[in-house]
Amino acid sequence: MAVCVGVAGGTGSGKTTIAATILGRVGADRVAHINQDRYNRDLVHLTHAQLVHHNFDRPSAINTELLTEHVRTLKRGRPAELPVYDFVHHRRLTAVERLEARPLVLVEGILTLAIPELRELLDLRLFVDTDADLRFIRRLRRDLAERGRTVDEVITQYLETVRPMHQELVEPSKRWADLIIPGGGDSALALDEVIRRIEQLLREESA
Amino acid sequence: MAVCVGVAGGTGSGKTTIAATILGRVGADRVAHINQDRYNRDLVHLTHAQLVHHNFDRPSAINTELLTEHVRTLKRGRPAELPVYDFVHHRRLTAVERLEARPLVLVEGILTLAIPELRELLDLRLFVDTDADLRFIRRLRRDLAERGRTVDEVITQYLETVRPMHQELVEPSKRWADLIIPGGGDSALALDEVIRRIEQLLREESA
Repeated sequence: MAVCVGVAGGTGSGKTTIAATILGRVGADRVAHINQDRYNRDLVHLTHAQLVHHNFDRPSAINTELLTEHVRTLKRGRPAELPVYDFVHHRRLTAVERLEARPLVLVEGILTLAIPELRELLDLRLFVDTDADLRFIRRLRRDLAERGRTVDEVITQYLETVRPMHQELVEPSKRWADLIIPGGGDSALALDEVIRRIEQLLREESA
Repeated sequence: MAVCVGVAGGTGSGKTTIAATILGRVGADRVAHINQDRYNRDLVHLTHAQLVHHNFDRPSAINTELLTEHVRTLKRGRPAELPVYDFVHHRRLTAVERLEARPLVLVEGILTLAIPELRELLDLRLFVDTDADLRFIRRLRRDLAERGRTVDEVITQYLETVRPMHQELVEPSKRWADLIIPGGGDSALALDEVIRRIEQLLREESA
């Protein structure tokens, strides 16, 4: 069985940076990295105006069954065929990406600890905890730079859907975490402990 | 002696809305309203680029002695001659505004509870408590709409000076509050209690 590690945390918390650090320190050849974003459902029927109000963070907006199934498959040592999502047109493409099984499965996404079936598969549960103002600023910068949004669109989406979902689902899921990683400042010490634990789990699994 | 009430809280917390409600419900003719912003020090020597990095929230950026002196004067039932600040050119004008003494002195500003000499003059200490992401969004909207700033300038100023000062001085000053008013949601019940206390203090003072 592969070791499964989950990285949760709100929008802009720094999950990707933490996941990239884990990937780099454990070694990319030993890690099957899987991102929740791939499992967004098709929204090709929505207009641009509707998309601003769409709740991307609601569990029903994500194919959580497929995500959980793929994590289970990889944990059993078999490859998975990951969906490919077109973030420009908000639709799932017919193409898939084969992900080979590896000793460590690293699952990244805001709802990683909020989906019970997924949470139960995890051997180590991480939550990246970052102050809400910093998270909003990171999201604002990213959406302005990479997604061609206006400030008003970013604020509307944040207040209408992202923030309520964070308070209802993401923030409460922190209580399932084995380790809470500070995402707004220096996370070096917490990351040292994360790597130590992961290496220990990998040793136990291969023993 | 006039009754002194202070309204503190971070940038964008909703202090002005709370102060305006108190003013309206107690009656403007009974209230001498004084805002910390008037006491900013001259910055006419700074360039636009320097202003973005200037720490407006540091106590040394404010003439706290004059502010405290004016509150003390009004508390003793004498009029004060308030400074007039030109927010466009960041300088104090030579003109002053005479504020008549009234039964209630209402002091509004982020450092109201953080300045010990001022805090000691207050008969009722209020702190408007609002989540950091909401406060940043309010500030962003205001600075973009009213001050002709760019998003980058607002973010830079917030991260470099506003946020550190909030964490160092404003947030800790909450512990001096008699009442903490929720600024992000429904503050009706807390405001009812504030008005009840103020009316009680006014009755005791006039008895």
